[in-house]
Amino acid sequence: MGVFDGRLGFGRKAALLVIDFICAYTTPGAPFYAPAVVEAVQKTVPLLERARQKGVPVIYTKVVYHPTGADGGLFVQKIPSLRALVDGEPLAEIVPELTPAPNDVVVVKQYASAFFGTSLAPMLASMGVDTVILTGCSTSGCIRASAVDGMQHGFRVIVPRECVADRHPQPHEANLFDIDSKYGDVVDVDAVYAYLDTL
Amino acid sequence: MGVFDGRLGFGRKAALLVIDFICAYTTPGAPFYAPAVVEAVQKTVPLLERARQKGVPVIYTKVVYHPTGADGGLFVQKIPSLRALVDGEPLAEIVPELTPAPNDVVVVKQYASAFFGTSLAPMLASMGVDTVILTGCSTSGCIRASAVDGMQHGFRVIVPRECVADRHPQPHEANLFDIDSKYGDVVDVDAVYAYLDTL
Amino acid sequence: MGVFDGRLGFGRKAALLVIDFICAYTTPGAPFYAPAVVEAVQKTVPLLERARQKGVPVIYTKVVYHPTGADGGLFVQKIPSLRALVDGEPLAEIVPELTPAPNDVVVVKQYASAFFGTSLAPMLASMGVDTVILTGCSTSGCIRASAVDGMQHGFRVIVPRECVADRHPQPHEANLFDIDSKYGDVVDVDAVYAYLDTL
Amino acid sequence: MGVFDGRLGFGRKAALLVIDFICAYTTPGAPFYAPAVVEAVQKTVPLLERARQKGVPVIYTKVVYHPTGADGGLFVQKIPSLRALVDGEPLAEIVPELTPAPNDVVVVKQYASAFFGTSLAPMLASMGVDTVILTGCSTSGCIRASAVDGMQHGFRVIVPRECVADRHPQPHEANLFDIDSKYGDVVDVDAVYAYLDTL
Repeated sequence: MGVFDGRLGFGRKAALLVIDFICAYTTPGAPFYAPAVVEAVQKTVPLLERARQKGVPVIYTKVVYHPTGADGGLFVQKIPSLRALVDGEPLAEIVPELTPAPNDVVVVKQYASAFFGTSLAPMLASMGVDTVILTGCSTSGCIRASAVDGMQHGFRVIVPRECVADRHPQPHEANLFDIDSKYGDVVDVDAVYAYLDTL
Repeated sequence: MGVFDGRLGFGRKAALLVIDFICAYTTPGAPFYAPAVVEAVQKTVPLLERARQKGVPVIYTKVVYHPTGADGGLFVQKIPSLRALVDGEPLAEIVPELTPAPNDVVVVKQYASAFFGTSLAPMLASMGVDTVILTGCSTSGCIRASAVDGMQHGFRVIVPRECVADRHPQPHEANLFDIDSKYGDVVDVDAVYAYLDTL
Repeated sequence: MGVFDGRLGFGRKAALLVIDFICAYTTPGAPFYAPAVVEAVQKTVPLLERARQKGVPVIYTKVVYHPTGADGGLFVQKIPSLRALVDGEPLAEIVPELTPAPNDVVVVKQYASAFFGTSLAPMLASMGVDTVILTGCSTSGCIRASAVDGMQHGFRVIVPRECVADRHPQPHEANLFDIDSKYGDVVDVDAVYAYLDTL
Repeated sequence: MGVFDGRLGFGRKAALLVIDFICAYTTPGAPFYAPAVVEAVQKTVPLLERARQKGVPVIYTKVVYHPTGADGGLFVQKIPSLRALVDGEPLAEIVPELTPAPNDVVVVKQYASAFFGTSLAPMLASMGVDTVILTGCSTSGCIRASAVDGMQHGFRVIVPRECVADRHPQPHEANLFDIDSKYGDVVDVDAVYAYLDTL
């Protein structure tokens, strides 16, 4: 075995995370629009349905800033377009194809990692979850950051490659390579369906 | 000087934190009702006004849980009454005497410490704040936890004793003693007014 | 049931934490010397032995600062005596009655909470631990801070009262009261032995 | 201006971070050996010297695991070679060209981000630092993770490209691209010298 091809696999109990699948990525003309995200949303719809059937907890994240941007710290200073993501802005809403069910928790975050500045890690821990299946966007932004942080917090990270996307193919592939080498297992979505079938 | 009477004092730039001054503490019959909190709110009204005049950033916290309580983790399992604090519940709202101004950030939290599971620390850091003036309730709960965490994150913690309160006088005094010994400076509110006068 | 008498109980898998039982607390004349800590050490010796017999992971913490105190941040500015706890200082060593075994991890920390600025939480998570039994000192300092943070991170907190101690009886009792009300279960050490007997 | 070309620049006070420049990367035959790291070390030697002349705080990180690997959590399960980095192992030592001075703090970490599971952020905050200059390795590992986390914690992140390195040129470039787009400013080392000249 090489230095960087370790596998972690699924653990005791998984949760499905749906990270920042918001209209700002799927609406033509919006600042973060990316056709690849539209495609990843379509691939995630049936996965989400199967996960729900199997009782796997589904947790969403979205990004919301105060109108002043104060709670965005340096992130909104570095990427000023993010400041458009305020409460009530339609582009900041989760895409309609993946509308959260009433029992799903939507974690509001301000930074790249779903675990940073949120109570996601203790929520998962108190549920007995030890594995997170990451879907969402973008691969080079919030998915990468959440994969690193998920592993750091002690969660097995599984990334079904069809269910994450980026504006450009090169950062998408480069980040999947890094995640798979060091932080989690990048898999075909079929491997996640196969896991769900065991439940 | 004794082992535990060190003073930190005010630093370069302060923010005023208004922690969990919500109607659940000030409404007779509510589960957390405490007359001492009503009094602390009254003492905080003019302090807040003076802080605003001097351009000191004002940041609120309040507690909001998902209806399932999932995001409350073990805290809502330990204190089930907390689960009443859901979105839209009037008791979960900030008391009307201290209604946030449009520019004030309201940080939503799920745990005792205002810094835990929130992006409060990086928001303060990116503002150049190095000192936090803590007001709110309860002294033995969120004030104590926020004082410990504030110091741990590198913020000078100042607690004006008249502006924090608890259901019972004994935990109030015991926690002010511990905070003052180890984590921050417990002062008369006049000391905060004197600081504001220097701005 | 009242508002503040919820019980969490033991979960799936426990670890025993031995927090800051260092010679600075047990050596007459040392700055933090407290006879009650000597007694708590004695009560912890057999508990530790039983935990080991049952295969319960044992994790220690101790406090070590750089000679400049830089890594102690505001904590060592607030409590300058802490700066004595540098590498090689005998008072900073774990008490000989509780010397760590080769397989025990000793977490080095700089702040009050065993979870703050350390990789304790992810270590426990990756071990599948969901319950922490807290022993050590001081009740009003590192035990309280670790109890709050342990619960916040999603660990069931169990505090055997005989195995924690403080310089003074009043803060000891006041903090056990707060912990038991809001953050964890304060129990007689017999309850921990009874749990260990079930393993 | 495009969406992803914002600049943060230097702030009020900078620290120089020297991340994981350890012999495991610079010793031929070692598991993480990378000639590009040897070159980056050489470029960092004079930068470090100039920073010291100007009184810029220098903080190192290195990785140390317990012999059991328990404190490495899932990271050492994903990358088992990391477990070689135990106390006393020569490959885990900082390279001799960059030996820390007595006043420099060496932060011991177990994960990719220099900020995760360490007290680095509060140390910097308590020093009044708001800008971190990142040097070290690897670009796709600890530098990327530290850049994301540094920004998230509220520090302006500056990465002099000549002073960071990776085993392979492609992940090196891909990660510099992502960092520069979203988390910090990737600059020629001359820009850092120019900043130091202003001090």
